[in-house]
Amino acid sequence: MRLLLKGGTVINVFTGEMSVEDVLVEDSRIIGVGKYDAQDGDTVRDVTGKYICPGFIDGHIHIESTMLTPMEFARVSVPHGTTAVVADPHEIANVCGNTGIGYMLEASRDIPLTVYLMLPSCVPATQFDESGARLTAKDLEPFYSDPRVLGLGEMMNYPGVLAGDPEVRKKIESAVAHGKIVNGHAPLLSGNALDAYVAAGIRDDHECSSAKEAKERIRKGQRVMIRQGTAARNLEALLPLFEEPWAHRCLLVTDDKHPADLLQRGHIDDIIRQAARAGKDPVIGIRMATFWAAECFGLKDLGAVAPGYQADLLVLDDLESVSVCDVYRRGIRVVENGQMLPCKAPVIRRDFKKAIRNSFYMEKLSPKDFLIGAQGVKKSRVIRLVPHELLTDEWITEIDYNSQNGVDTGRDILKIAVVERHLNTGHKGIGLISGTGLKSGAIASSVSHDSHNLIIIGTNEEDMAFAGNCIRDLGGGSIVVQDGKVIEQMPLPLAGLMTDVPAAEIAAQNERVRESVHTLGVPEELEPFMTMAFVSLPVIPHIKITTKGLVDVDHQKLVPLLIEE
Amino acid sequence: MRLLLKGGTVINVFTGEMSVEDVLVEDSRIIGVGKYDAQDGDTVRDVTGKYICPGFIDGHIHIESTMLTPMEFARVSVPHGTTAVVADPHEIANVCGNTGIGYMLEASRDIPLTVYLMLPSCVPATQFDESGARLTAKDLEPFYSDPRVLGLGEMMNYPGVLAGDPEVRKKIESAVAHGKIVNGHAPLLSGNALDAYVAAGIRDDHECSSAKEAKERIRKGQRVMIRQGTAARNLEALLPLFEEPWAHRCLLVTDDKHPADLLQRGHIDDIIRQAARAGKDPVIGIRMATFWAAECFGLKDLGAVAPGYQADLLVLDDLESVSVCDVYRRGIRVVENGQMLPCKAPVIRRDFKKAIRNSFYMEKLSPKDFLIGAQGVKKSRVIRLVPHELLTDEWITEIDYNSQNGVDTGRDILKIAVVERHLNTGHKGIGLISGTGLKSGAIASSVSHDSHNLIIIGTNEEDMAFAGNCIRDLGGGSIVVQDGKVIEQMPLPLAGLMTDVPAAEIAAQNERVRESVHTLGVPEELEPFMTMAFVSLPVIPHIKITTKGLVDVDHQKLVPLLIEE
Repeated sequence: MRLLLKGGTVINVFTGEMSVEDVLVEDSRIIGVGKYDAQDGDTVRDVTGKYICPGFIDGHIHIESTMLTPMEFARVSVPHGTTAVVADPHEIANVCGNTGIGYMLEASRDIPLTVYLMLPSCVPATQFDESGARLTAKDLEPFYSDPRVLGLGEMMNYPGVLAGDPEVRKKIESAVAHGKIVNGHAPLLSGNALDAYVAAGIRDDHECSSAKEAKERIRKGQRVMIRQGTAARNLEALLPLFEEPWAHRCLLVTDDKHPADLLQRGHIDDIIRQAARAGKDPVIGIRMATFWAAECFGLKDLGAVAPGYQADLLVLDDLESVSVCDVYRRGIRVVENGQMLPCKAPVIRRDFKKAIRNSFYMEKLSPKDFLIGAQGVKKSRVIRLVPHELLTDEWITEIDYNSQNGVDTGRDILKIAVVERHLNTGHKGIGLISGTGLKSGAIASSVSHDSHNLIIIGTNEEDMAFAGNCIRDLGGGSIVVQDGKVIEQMPLPLAGLMTDVPAAEIAAQNERVRESVHTLGVPEELEPFMTMAFVSLPVIPHIKITTKGLVDVDHQKLVPLLIEE
Repeated sequence: MRLLLKGGTVINVFTGEMSVEDVLVEDSRIIGVGKYDAQDGDTVRDVTGKYICPGFIDGHIHIESTMLTPMEFARVSVPHGTTAVVADPHEIANVCGNTGIGYMLEASRDIPLTVYLMLPSCVPATQFDESGARLTAKDLEPFYSDPRVLGLGEMMNYPGVLAGDPEVRKKIESAVAHGKIVNGHAPLLSGNALDAYVAAGIRDDHECSSAKEAKERIRKGQRVMIRQGTAARNLEALLPLFEEPWAHRCLLVTDDKHPADLLQRGHIDDIIRQAARAGKDPVIGIRMATFWAAECFGLKDLGAVAPGYQADLLVLDDLESVSVCDVYRRGIRVVENGQMLPCKAPVIRRDFKKAIRNSFYMEKLSPKDFLIGAQGVKKSRVIRLVPHELLTDEWITEIDYNSQNGVDTGRDILKIAVVERHLNTGHKGIGLISGTGLKSGAIASSVSHDSHNLIIIGTNEEDMAFAGNCIRDLGGGSIVVQDGKVIEQMPLPLAGLMTDVPAAEIAAQNERVRESVHTLGVPEELEPFMTMAFVSLPVIPHIKITTKGLVDVDHQKLVPLLIEE
């Protein structure tokens, strides 16, 4: 079957030129870009006045963060011109281990989006994390034979790389031995330490937050992934990279992207659009999002409108606004006039499905599980949130445990608990937290980086237990409760991270849950769920909480809640 | 072992910048580029005031054309900064088949130059060629497991590619299936035919002879190898490519390079130097010769002075003149102050050695073997040489076979013979040739593209037989004879193509042989050996000769010497 797109202006990713060309496609491949006659195609489409460019590639995303299945994610992202993503199933692997990786591979086969995987390099993320799995180099090895597995995902354990940790080394060597690549993740590393990290074979990074940092990476041979997601937004700082000699060593990524953000703003198209609004050539943005991304991953047949390349093509109405009209994937039109055409959902192995839907292994909670065993007034460590930041401060203050077991809504001191939910160990960490503004009830979620245990913040033990049990019964999700009643909830029954409802519905649920906290006294400017999701990640300074208790991040050690004098 | 090069100006191939940096090497790898202390290195060398760049890569060369063994070739090219070549053993494979490829792999292992191979795609080159071997996709297959084999060599059979010839397709598919690349060779192909050729998976070409042609290739996704060899010299025409957006899609290659040329002018360094003299930035030349070449072949650890890259490093005294002071290969100094340091010759398997040294299988020749069976005056086809061109014209003229069996030195009409020498078939093609200027004696050679049969041009049958038998006894080479005496000769006992004498010696022998033809009446401005080497290649218009007789190249068919009326 031959498809001929006649008369469009083709973006040449090799030279940056634009010219009017006919594009001839046979089955899934482009076979000609030049002058062709109408009779060369079985189907001929006139695209005069429109632009043709390759499909966009997101070089680094955790699909789980969209809360969508790969299929639902495709339905939202493909109309924005995304035809391929490189996904790191780090979140689901922390819950379900290799079964999670296997599920993501299955759930993304035969969907109208090419999903490549990078294998999660750090499961668990830290020594303080109790994940659902512990993945060694040996566990990851079998996945490398899958051609959709491109390498080892973001190597966050840079101290391990620098120290020559044998297991870290094994993971990197195994990826390289299979001809695969290793993604970096080493914020602010520079100088000789960066040399050592790069020399280990890590040729990219997506954590750059300044042009200076990014330029040092490029000079040292790394490619820079310009990240513009829902939470971490580095585009503005990295706009200077949209010029040579930097641009051709950059690609565009979202890392974490929430469903409402995807629906409202778009995906990779939105990054190009934002850069264009800031005065940067959209052709540079398109080249970053296509050929230069493909180069980064060694994808030889992706990212160009040229003979021999896979026919992942976009027809754009306009360049500056990156308005996607039609999307062809492997030569088949999957989006017409901005609308996704019908497509079948993938068939997923029953055992995978079952494992993913049954990711909660924990006993029912009771209010006494949340009691702190202390009497009288005690000097204690409180996690103090910093507005609009993921980092936290340690606040040492006097707590009266005889009054509400330490909770003091007047001083905005509440209880926080992280409950192990993968292996039914009964482990839990209980602490105190300030800065959410919650005046009554409790909130809970199974999305808590990176081990995704059950996390609960509450003003009383009864509501904490109730919220936790509701999430347990839902098999995951986020919830707001008050006086034993559910105010709003968002079920995430797939590994406690994702759902199979459509994007618009989960975005609405998510919005309702987030909004409902304000009825419990949280000021309008605060968003406690996002904070809660990262307060269990003991790599972001200064004090965090896991199932093992409070962690002093700066000194990488557990610290007690009560300060003995 | 750690080596520290302190204070040099490093050429950054990623950005084109230059900056003063210390380069730290551990064993064979670069582990740091920045500021390092003297105590970081076990050996410290001050290179202040000098330049540091990656070793040069020749992206396409037939080592056999240098007449040198890989080891001798290394001795000449490495002091010019070449640390890697991508060689297509097309010539030796036409003589010795897979044994020839195996020999080249063995003879280039453990030498101070990295020799990668592309497998010869067209052995024999045409249907009219009687080669020593016939290599199918299946024959080539086993070589792909060798990490030094990067793909399938120049696919000259572009009509076969365009027609979808099943064997051609199999060869390409097999290379691609092994994750390897396919080199192109399709001079002047353009438009839709070029689309079809590129779509077959052929992503480079070294036959571009104009900037216009090259730009079309780059726009269509091919990389352009800028060829500047001994015979074919495309640099001047392709100088416009030394600017973006073209430069990063180009590399530098020599294709065929003769020993005297190597000794006198240099290798890849000379191409950069010539471009610099023509006003082009030597940093662009260096990037073409290093990182962009490595990119072409997917060599991830080659071509940059950056952490994790192989320590193939050059210390240059000067940039514009590309004067190579020291060469490090895999962290070991192999050239000091422009002089090659001692190195051991590789050990070669005895059976390979024996096969390569015994490549002549043919009976002794006698003068009557060269008689044309014709009487009286007959209208005949004469190959007429075009001065300084490889193409030939067909000259139809009356020949009196009763006088010297057709030879007429007055009209410069001599005899030419191509004698099968691989399989002792006794096949030979006899024809007439005009344009060499030879007045007496004969010349002969075993270097005759692409099947390298024995080729002889002579003024009489006795000298032709004598010259042929001499070459047979030498096991290959070139010779000039007169009246049963050797005037000059150059033995090429390895496959009839190469020798293991040093480069200076073979260059001198070659010069003496070439010069001596003038004592037989050849005008100073003519060089019949070069012409003779290509007059048996039935892909260059218009009339050529093989062991099967005269070939009408334009119509790709055999034609008789005598024209029947």
